[in-house]
Amino acid sequence: MDLTTGNVECAKAPIGVFDSGIGGLTVAREIMRQIPNESIVYFGDTARLPYGSKSKETVTRYSRQIVRFLKTHHVKTIVAACNTVSAYALEMLEQESDIPVIGVVKPGAKVAAATTRNKKIGVIATEATIGSGIYNRYIEELNHGVTIWEKACPLFVPLVEEGLLEDPVTDEIARRYLTELIDLDIDTLILGCTHYPLIRSTLGRIMGEGVTLVNPAYETARELKEMLAEKGLLNTEEPKLGSNRYQFYVSDTTEKFIRFANSIIKYGILSARQVNIEEY
Amino acid sequence: MDLTTGNVECAKAPIGVFDSGIGGLTVAREIMRQIPNESIVYFGDTARLPYGSKSKETVTRYSRQIVRFLKTHHVKTIVAACNTVSAYALEMLEQESDIPVIGVVKPGAKVAAATTRNKKIGVIATEATIGSGIYNRYIEELNHGVTIWEKACPLFVPLVEEGLLEDPVTDEIARRYLTELIDLDIDTLILGCTHYPLIRSTLGRIMGEGVTLVNPAYETARELKEMLAEKGLLNTEEPKLGSNRYQFYVSDTTEKFIRFANSIIKYGILSARQVNIEEY
Repeated sequence: MDLTTGNVECAKAPIGVFDSGIGGLTVAREIMRQIPNESIVYFGDTARLPYGSKSKETVTRYSRQIVRFLKTHHVKTIVAACNTVSAYALEMLEQESDIPVIGVVKPGAKVAAATTRNKKIGVIATEATIGSGIYNRYIEELNHGVTIWEKACPLFVPLVEEGLLEDPVTDEIARRYLTELIDLDIDTLILGCTHYPLIRSTLGRIMGEGVTLVNPAYETARELKEMLAEKGLLNTEEPKLGSNRYQFYVSDTTEKFIRFANSIIKYGILSARQVNIEEY
Repeated sequence: MDLTTGNVECAKAPIGVFDSGIGGLTVAREIMRQIPNESIVYFGDTARLPYGSKSKETVTRYSRQIVRFLKTHHVKTIVAACNTVSAYALEMLEQESDIPVIGVVKPGAKVAAATTRNKKIGVIATEATIGSGIYNRYIEELNHGVTIWEKACPLFVPLVEEGLLEDPVTDEIARRYLTELIDLDIDTLILGCTHYPLIRSTLGRIMGEGVTLVNPAYETARELKEMLAEKGLLNTEEPKLGSNRYQFYVSDTTEKFIRFANSIIKYGILSARQVNIEEY
């Protein structure tokens, strides 16, 4: 597909969105909200999740397979809706791909760098994302005098997946993880994992009113919209009633995914198809 | 390898032990303790862990690849040191294999069935193991009048991996998961996931003194020893000083695995090798 000049056919093509599992649905949700004319093909790697504790090499190999799969759906662009993928594999995916690939780290970093007033930013994320130091790198490029503190929060994902969104245990764990960031007097906190917006109110309460929470899912959808507009790839046609414009694929069985997807996206996701991703 | 009649060469071959990651090390540890002459080749599928939330089909595909890998090491027997594998894939592995394959579910079920006095048994495990109903099936075959209550405890694995072995949060989560089992007056509790022996003291404190905790890792090592003795496959030679008889392989990077392995097995595990398991 030649995307150098926008044309109506290319603009009608779907957007590919992928994640290690369900977290990326918070990004898909923002895309649905902000650019509702677009179609989406979503892939969740539920057979191999989570990525956040795995190595760069493994995450890169998995991401390549998923990009190959999404391309079989003739997507016009790909969103790596996973901080770990964005941290470990995005540069490689960008280099290898003939269509635009965007991640969630840069958009979040950009807004955080522009938001902070006291030049103290905190980042919470998985072990892999923190270990990569990528938020640090991006933010320093954008805003030199800023100091960044990063904190891995490995229990947040399982707590969210267990449904403990508003719970004293989640409060207690969040307090332990965040205390040092509070003591360091940060005024901006990046929610550097796509699961974290689901416990946003807990995080906001613990951090206090003076701290701005940055949700990269929101910023990514905004940047995606701008990029598509620039390239003449925004779909200007309103979706037809009853058209099946959101498609979901997973690498493991679908029931648990559908249940979770319906709790995140109030859209009535009825089905997801299973794919053997190792074949791609 | 013809294992129908034991011979010295076969007896010297290593035992293959595998798990989705690190949990199976509690089983390897028991094998080291109970039959110290044996060599072990351990494989942890750290690139695709955890298995406990995945489907039967996926766990079976992964297990087949691992068995093929272990056989390249000419193992004399294979221990599926993972309850999810034992629940989902063991029958298939037994049928397909020309060497003995044993799991952790049957040994645990056998001891629990023999231990209970009031015929009320509880099982705690991952979602996959509970969903399979396998403990229920085995125990009913062994002891007809027994009632079994099962409870999935998805947060225990991440809590153990975060190192919260003795912690108020683990206490609180354990209390929530176990309250209904306490109310049901069980006298025997099977720790149906290889991570759980690591929070054994928390579980024991909450369940109270009247409840016997069954650790399938211990029972599996005992059954393995008996089986090897019956087949004339026990290694009677004492290991030579400095011989490298425990080998560890993983599918993702090794550092985290080595750190955790050293916290479980007080043996000084210095190295593990990385394998691309999808190629098997």
